[in-house]
Amino acid sequence: MTAQQGSEPVTAALLVIGEEILSGRTRDENITYIAAYLTRMGIVLREVRVVADDEEEIAAAVNALRRRFTYVFTTGGIGPTHDDVTADAIAKAFEVEIAVAPDAVAAMRKRFETEDLTPARLRMARVPKGATLIDNPISRAPGFMLENVIVMAGVPRIMQVMLDAVAPRLAKGNPILTRSVRLDVPEGDAAPGLADLQSSHPEVQIGSYPFFENKRLGTYVVLRATDADKLADAVAGLWDLVSKQGFHAVAAVDE
Amino acid sequence: MTAQQGSEPVTAALLVIGEEILSGRTRDENITYIAAYLTRMGIVLREVRVVADDEEEIAAAVNALRRRFTYVFTTGGIGPTHDDVTADAIAKAFEVEIAVAPDAVAAMRKRFETEDLTPARLRMARVPKGATLIDNPISRAPGFMLENVIVMAGVPRIMQVMLDAVAPRLAKGNPILTRSVRLDVPEGDAAPGLADLQSSHPEVQIGSYPFFENKRLGTYVVLRATDADKLADAVAGLWDLVSKQGFHAVAAVDE
Repeated sequence: MTAQQGSEPVTAALLVIGEEILSGRTRDENITYIAAYLTRMGIVLREVRVVADDEEEIAAAVNALRRRFTYVFTTGGIGPTHDDVTADAIAKAFEVEIAVAPDAVAAMRKRFETEDLTPARLRMARVPKGATLIDNPISRAPGFMLENVIVMAGVPRIMQVMLDAVAPRLAKGNPILTRSVRLDVPEGDAAPGLADLQSSHPEVQIGSYPFFENKRLGTYVVLRATDADKLADAVAGLWDLVSKQGFHAVAAVDE
Repeated sequence: MTAQQGSEPVTAALLVIGEEILSGRTRDENITYIAAYLTRMGIVLREVRVVADDEEEIAAAVNALRRRFTYVFTTGGIGPTHDDVTADAIAKAFEVEIAVAPDAVAAMRKRFETEDLTPARLRMARVPKGATLIDNPISRAPGFMLENVIVMAGVPRIMQVMLDAVAPRLAKGNPILTRSVRLDVPEGDAAPGLADLQSSHPEVQIGSYPFFENKRLGTYVVLRATDADKLADAVAGLWDLVSKQGFHAVAAVDE
């Protein structure tokens, strides 16, 4: 596991809410985006869950996750229709009231005329008591943050601006540094050396990912750490291994 | 929720195992594939979790999920390297022994010469006691099924052949029928009518998914049921609504 140099790691879980993902109708685009975004902030994403638009299931997942991780992010289920139940589920999870928030209505007035603020649209201004709003410059219906739970839209473009809006409020961890090396040998050939390398560099996380390209198996080795020197030592150890074993290897582009 | 016409619904959870998904390095391709595959089999995917390559976390997730759903599918973590801990985690979850299985070695001999069956590769022949193998015609290291838990590779092509291999062993549910209609109005305008439609068709699941295209908001309405007549009634009700409200709408392609 990644060393955190004496400070506690900042961790997160992501709860994706949406029947459309579970039915296979829609390919989720938010998991990878949020995962990479949090990694750049030094926040370690430790778990993702996808559940249906069901108040009980959402509330249960939020309660399970918010006690284990620094932050819980949710996407989806905050629109104006009958199947948007995320805000109610969050209120249920925290056992607080939910009501139309004047500041949410004020935000929506930047886009909607009074006659367009229908009861359906005003559903999007309902937030659990104690929550603070997250700005949505695109479609104006806000997200919100309640304690360590951050509730965002499911539409990727809107989720992304909400994430930008909330990021300055979050604790940052130590940046996670990454190096990748591509080996043109199957994982099975690289395995003994990599196991030894991991044992001798416990504070660097060494992952091994097979790939299959042009009918040949290869292995990406990904090294991650928050300590640049320890990472460099492990990378040097990997190149020693490559040289001793006679593997063909190239440094891969790091994110 | 979808009606199951007197028979119990066949349900599933998917557990995706892989640090690379959580770090944002790799975009998962298996969730959507498995979701759509199970939907076609009439198996209702109810939850997805993504966890790191960590024995404790995998075991805890498997135990939480296998008691709630008909099946639990896992992807990832069954390769030959030090970070492949899924088989051990499953053994731990079920509190059974794990050992090299002769039939798994026999399967691997179809591809590997004896001198290539190194200790690292033989790790891939270790399966928990009581498991039955799932054939892998591509790279030969098998998946396995233990009670209601189905353990597959993470590499998409290999996962896909394993899913084909195990599918005939699984209970099928009533096929889930789907119709989609695209409305060229924002969700907020469609919401009241859709809420009424859902109330009057409780055995049809009516989902509403906003989209943003050419700078305009629109709404996909997705209707799902196992009973064709009830689905047809709800679709007719939707077209009535479209006509009464003067929406522009087109039937969308169904999966």
